[in-house]
Amino acid sequence: MNAKFMNNAISQAKNAAKLDEVPVGAVIVKNGKIIAAAHNLTKTQKDATAHAEMLCIKAAQELLCTDHLFGCELYVTLEPCPMCAGAIINAKIDEVIYGAADPKGGAVDSKINLFAQNFNYRPAVYGGIKEEACRSLLQEFFEDKR
Amino acid sequence: MNAKFMNNAISQAKNAAKLDEVPVGAVIVKNGKIIAAAHNLTKTQKDATAHAEMLCIKAAQELLCTDHLFGCELYVTLEPCPMCAGAIINAKIDEVIYGAADPKGGAVDSKINLFAQNFNYRPAVYGGIKEEACRSLLQEFFEDKR
Repeated sequence: MNAKFMNNAISQAKNAAKLDEVPVGAVIVKNGKIIAAAHNLTKTQKDATAHAEMLCIKAAQELLCTDHLFGCELYVTLEPCPMCAGAIINAKIDEVIYGAADPKGGAVDSKINLFAQNFNYRPAVYGGIKEEACRSLLQEFFEDKR
Repeated sequence: MNAKFMNNAISQAKNAAKLDEVPVGAVIVKNGKIIAAAHNLTKTQKDATAHAEMLCIKAAQELLCTDHLFGCELYVTLEPCPMCAGAIINAKIDEVIYGAADPKGGAVDSKINLFAQNFNYRPAVYGGIKEEACRSLLQEFFEDKR
């Protein structure tokens, strides 16, 4: 875990906001280098599964030509939802580092801890990294919507 | 729910086996008609997220030009994993009908019930539909692997 990579995830989230997408961004890091970056695209792609983490996982798999992301760290600005937490298990990502907690939809700490349910794989988790920056992006986005 | 559509999901699962993929198949039905069909493609696509349900959800969204699958039923031969159960919540699918339970990885009944965790959406669930046919496909597949 290196908190500096959250800045890259935050940049991705800002790009999402420019497209009027909920500002959530993610990057995947392997051996200290970013190998994939993505942001939420659910509205643009009309795809409820096009969360930042899913798009990032797919991009990393494509780059590495494998469906196992051993040795990879996922940095994401918002606590993953159940779908993304499940994808993290399936892809066997080593570490998950998230920014803001998601009291309503978080599946890693807030609402449930999917990783503690004894599925066949359990990543390390670091929450609350650059939380204030991650959360304020979301707050500003939703305030503008009112 | 109409159990006959599980036969179509089973046909999809058989197609998966022909490609040496774990035989899990799914179809999505709206207004009594199949609008999407898919099977597991994780090995072929080198993508840990390429489960039958995910591919089916994406295909249905594309067809309907929307990320909300209201009025849709998902038939799948195996109990959904956490990722797929989470995608079902995100896409707001009305009903989930599954065949064989998955004691090790099922996130709808067996290991946990993700839909009972008070996320923002809860579909109806019917389990054990044409269970024997769905399960025997999986058993034969894994016996051949020994």
